[in-house]
Amino acid sequence: MAIQAGVIGATGYAGAELVRILSGHPQVELAAISSVSYAGQPLSAVYPAYYGLCDMVCGTEEEVLDKSKVVFAALPHGLSQEIAKKCYDTDKVFIDLGADFRLKRLEEYEQWYGVKAIYPELHEEAVYGLPEFFRDKIRGKKLIANPGCYTTAVPLALVPALKAGLIEKDGIIADCKSGVTGAGRKSTQDTHYPELNEGMHAYKVGGHRHTPEIEQTLRSICGEEVKVTFTPHLLPVNRGILATCYAHLKAGTTLAQLQQTYQEFYQNEYFIHVLPQGMRADIHHVRCSNFCEIELHTDERTGMLVAVSALDNMVKGAAGQAVQNMNLALGLPETTGLTMFPPAF
Amino acid sequence: MAIQAGVIGATGYAGAELVRILSGHPQVELAAISSVSYAGQPLSAVYPAYYGLCDMVCGTEEEVLDKSKVVFAALPHGLSQEIAKKCYDTDKVFIDLGADFRLKRLEEYEQWYGVKAIYPELHEEAVYGLPEFFRDKIRGKKLIANPGCYTTAVPLALVPALKAGLIEKDGIIADCKSGVTGAGRKSTQDTHYPELNEGMHAYKVGGHRHTPEIEQTLRSICGEEVKVTFTPHLLPVNRGILATCYAHLKAGTTLAQLQQTYQEFYQNEYFIHVLPQGMRADIHHVRCSNFCEIELHTDERTGMLVAVSALDNMVKGAAGQAVQNMNLALGLPETTGLTMFPPAF
Amino acid sequence: MAIQAGVIGATGYAGAELVRILSGHPQVELAAISSVSYAGQPLSAVYPAYYGLCDMVCGTEEEVLDKSKVVFAALPHGLSQEIAKKCYDTDKVFIDLGADFRLKRLEEYEQWYGVKAIYPELHEEAVYGLPEFFRDKIRGKKLIANPGCYTTAVPLALVPALKAGLIEKDGIIADCKSGVTGAGRKSTQDTHYPELNEGMHAYKVGGHRHTPEIEQTLRSICGEEVKVTFTPHLLPVNRGILATCYAHLKAGTTLAQLQQTYQEFYQNEYFIHVLPQGMRADIHHVRCSNFCEIELHTDERTGMLVAVSALDNMVKGAAGQAVQNMNLALGLPETTGLTMFPPAF
Amino acid sequence: MAIQAGVIGATGYAGAELVRILSGHPQVELAAISSVSYAGQPLSAVYPAYYGLCDMVCGTEEEVLDKSKVVFAALPHGLSQEIAKKCYDTDKVFIDLGADFRLKRLEEYEQWYGVKAIYPELHEEAVYGLPEFFRDKIRGKKLIANPGCYTTAVPLALVPALKAGLIEKDGIIADCKSGVTGAGRKSTQDTHYPELNEGMHAYKVGGHRHTPEIEQTLRSICGEEVKVTFTPHLLPVNRGILATCYAHLKAGTTLAQLQQTYQEFYQNEYFIHVLPQGMRADIHHVRCSNFCEIELHTDERTGMLVAVSALDNMVKGAAGQAVQNMNLALGLPETTGLTMFPPAF
Repeated sequence: MAIQAGVIGATGYAGAELVRILSGHPQVELAAISSVSYAGQPLSAVYPAYYGLCDMVCGTEEEVLDKSKVVFAALPHGLSQEIAKKCYDTDKVFIDLGADFRLKRLEEYEQWYGVKAIYPELHEEAVYGLPEFFRDKIRGKKLIANPGCYTTAVPLALVPALKAGLIEKDGIIADCKSGVTGAGRKSTQDTHYPELNEGMHAYKVGGHRHTPEIEQTLRSICGEEVKVTFTPHLLPVNRGILATCYAHLKAGTTLAQLQQTYQEFYQNEYFIHVLPQGMRADIHHVRCSNFCEIELHTDERTGMLVAVSALDNMVKGAAGQAVQNMNLALGLPETTGLTMFPPAF
Repeated sequence: MAIQAGVIGATGYAGAELVRILSGHPQVELAAISSVSYAGQPLSAVYPAYYGLCDMVCGTEEEVLDKSKVVFAALPHGLSQEIAKKCYDTDKVFIDLGADFRLKRLEEYEQWYGVKAIYPELHEEAVYGLPEFFRDKIRGKKLIANPGCYTTAVPLALVPALKAGLIEKDGIIADCKSGVTGAGRKSTQDTHYPELNEGMHAYKVGGHRHTPEIEQTLRSICGEEVKVTFTPHLLPVNRGILATCYAHLKAGTTLAQLQQTYQEFYQNEYFIHVLPQGMRADIHHVRCSNFCEIELHTDERTGMLVAVSALDNMVKGAAGQAVQNMNLALGLPETTGLTMFPPAF
Repeated sequence: MAIQAGVIGATGYAGAELVRILSGHPQVELAAISSVSYAGQPLSAVYPAYYGLCDMVCGTEEEVLDKSKVVFAALPHGLSQEIAKKCYDTDKVFIDLGADFRLKRLEEYEQWYGVKAIYPELHEEAVYGLPEFFRDKIRGKKLIANPGCYTTAVPLALVPALKAGLIEKDGIIADCKSGVTGAGRKSTQDTHYPELNEGMHAYKVGGHRHTPEIEQTLRSICGEEVKVTFTPHLLPVNRGILATCYAHLKAGTTLAQLQQTYQEFYQNEYFIHVLPQGMRADIHHVRCSNFCEIELHTDERTGMLVAVSALDNMVKGAAGQAVQNMNLALGLPETTGLTMFPPAF
Repeated sequence: MAIQAGVIGATGYAGAELVRILSGHPQVELAAISSVSYAGQPLSAVYPAYYGLCDMVCGTEEEVLDKSKVVFAALPHGLSQEIAKKCYDTDKVFIDLGADFRLKRLEEYEQWYGVKAIYPELHEEAVYGLPEFFRDKIRGKKLIANPGCYTTAVPLALVPALKAGLIEKDGIIADCKSGVTGAGRKSTQDTHYPELNEGMHAYKVGGHRHTPEIEQTLRSICGEEVKVTFTPHLLPVNRGILATCYAHLKAGTTLAQLQQTYQEFYQNEYFIHVLPQGMRADIHHVRCSNFCEIELHTDERTGMLVAVSALDNMVKGAAGQAVQNMNLALGLPETTGLTMFPPAF
């Protein structure tokens, strides 16, 4: 019998992408969806691409909680805490695509998000859902903080080198480029087609909230504080994150060594493609899929590692990874429902 | 046990899309692929998006014929005739994405394509694979001519009105807009990014080869000659065909009547969405899917029907419809492997 | 000494484009600009591309009227009537980029726009500013109704054939495709980048307000009522209108005859390029310029003229044509300030 | 009387852009153009946007040299040396948009480009045409090496801080994003619309030929060797370079100090806009113009300067800067022909 899953906040981009991915999952049934802005309307009224495919009407958060064994929430920060509590009390699996349970240091959470942690014990309980690094902790877990998009792309590009001690911890830079869906569904002047098309700019330089989350993951790997200079940019494409990461090579580190280290590190990872030399990581290659490409270079003149990762911000950077986490939580094969090829064009 | 399927011409766009769609088909296994230009190379060397997912090496046409029970060919016109003969002689299912078996009047084929029909009896044998109109003839068939993209979009928009006698047969106009994949994988000056981006133009006005094919389908429905003025345009998007079709309304025909006629005509068609008044057919809604949206209007001031259809030229206009035809040929449920939602963004 | 010009509604797209074009006009000086939404802010706060180039602060309508000898207004319909009155009373040249003075039949204006004509005598006085057809009436005039974008593109494509009696007046169809700037600067869900990019749809089918304006121009040429089926579409590009126009050829009309007729008709028109056979009209070719390309075809099988015109909706379809009209009104050479090449890419 | 100027290699993108810009220059007349690939054809056959505007036929290099007082060449590296010699011997102004005379250290030129310096004395004679830094040397000069696009964008972002001693010379990183015109006019699989659209990737990581040129400029400013880690990326837009540059702040350097330093450094530079805090450098803002925007940030957590510059790779990064250099060489006002506003959308 199918597992009942529900989505709170289904009319945002991450929520809608969850509905799409769950529709192709052979063991899950979409039980209920909710939306504050579109309560009472079918999802297909908001996303005409789903017309005739998901005309389910948006109900309330309570209805989702009632009907679902697995609850996903894709909400602005602050709003997931009470949902997590209710799921915890009723023994449901809760996978939070928002930011509320990602940061382990509550002072960082409160400082970067301006929100109070209401249930510190739930923060303690929550596991950070980046399966390639924390798979064993995620398995069978009921409260999972699904990482953000940048915070998936940057660590995937850096962790193998950091863990193997091939790069320095100081002076790491992550220059990231994101597709426009990363800015959400709400239309703004910045995302008005004629003003974004044929343009590109950096935003929130030195102050994006994903910074402490990236640092937390790197710190958890190498056991020491790591500081990252992180610059996000907005790209005129719908989907994708390209993370170009720079780190100082330790003396003697070679490209061949790095290439081998990454290939071994990720050799059993279905979703991670460490590209051979000569292939390029490109957001074009991973659209609508849960895959992540990684491309490695060294600049011998300057002693730098340049590691580039590419993923779909809405899939591996949000909804796909959430389903991957659900699979782990429920004890299903991790790739279930996530094996569809990306379109080649 | 899985059905063995092969793709001849796998490195063109239609072939690559077939591989993607077949990868998600639960009852089919990709047995072999071929390519003249990329013989000996893995498909993923041509389409890096498939790296790690389909690294199958391109072999010869013969290898595909040897290993497959179902053979797809996506080749330039003229080249499918010998393949069809071999499949026919060895009792394989052959689904031709090229143009060789589409036109029933051989003189039209020879005139528009400049190619001689070598096996007239195979042309006789072939069925035109537009399931929404010719499903009963396709079922169990072994030689199927898969329609082109425009030639799917335009008839889907016009046939219900034509069949019901709500529009005139004279003066039909199809103003069509196609994404760039319709021009194929070969790079040209016209498809060089900076010269196509931010542009749009008509091409082959009054002379596109899909014209007689559209007319053949309309003729087969209404039993009389139909002439269509057909203008294709090239759009700066990857995928999609938007067909804006104009026809003179017969006296007394109302929009409500048309809306009801179309809804009834397509009521059991999984892939066809006749949109309610107020919704718009948009190529954005059907990307990477086998769905087709249809939107209906009348201009009472001028007595015209304006019917707009939208589909993905590479899926419902090529590879997806080919798989739909394969399902019919093999007696599988028609929608198998074709139910994935289109992405909402 | 420079002529003082002012722009009312400078922060909309047409207004901002006027500022750009006027900045390159050797005989005009921008005297004042106004905006209701951005009063007190520099134009460059709204359009950062103008930072350091036009940091003029948006004042009131009154300030513009005070300081300018030539007044442009780019306002929603209804709002230009009082401005026209004030300009008329003070003997200023007024060029209205809005719709208020375009329709000569006041009942059409009131019906299509839902607005009352307050000063019928000004409507009488106003001249319709499509210089290629009405140049003699525009010269020295003080109240000019600048046409809309579609209403420039469609008549430019059809008038020579209509005037020469080479096509029928009945059954004309204009299938038009517009860049997103045609939808204005206000961001909406429809123009949110991820929902428009990679999409295309028709809108306001059979009911767009430019319909009576197109018909008025055609009527004024051939002296009889003309009805046009007009379908606008939204294209994922910033600028441009491609108008694909269909008309029934009169018996015996040949393509050569049409080509010659158009070339002769436009032979002295600097801004109109009737393309030789083999070249394609493309919105890519005319971006940021006041030029219009026209491409001619006949479909002999169906007896139709297919005439395609391409122009920049913000220049020849709005601000550029307004400056062309200003030049005529002031007795300056018509092309002054409008000769810059379009970018080739 | 107009100065006669000629363009060798007029059918490449830089050459075509030169023709566009020169067409708006009040003191220059285009005397002749040449092309090897399109000899005997009008420029408008290659760039239909110029139809009716520049139908000049492409002649030979010799014809250009004969007819011109100022010669521009936009050729692959290696080919400008003989042209430079001929111009030198006949006392013409030669502005080379290629790479032959940019690198002062001939061993670097020969190593990075694999070409021999034939006339070392001309390399000695040549001045590097980045007017904001080397204006005094360019004035009245007859042999000018016009910088590349990245090599304009990166130094403009870094030099004021470097010269003022506010940043370290070690560990500089330039993460750059370029529009597709930077890849030239030749169509390739990489620039085929469907494969580039909706994509982004890095290329030539650690090995792009602009690296030594960037370092040469920085070295010439601070008097010491500087090594830069430079990563170019290809963006799905036509025009623009966004250079995100990272450097270690010297202890005590504040953002306010940097902002003031840059504003003072560029205060008399017409083409450089140091943006106030809160505004973003965006390639959208500078399209088709010779302007460059610079945006400054510090990341106090990591002690880094993040300086972002945006310019049009074909204008300030190529043809516009070449005209700026020509103006300096000829003693004309530096901004002549380069003051047109960028389009706001």
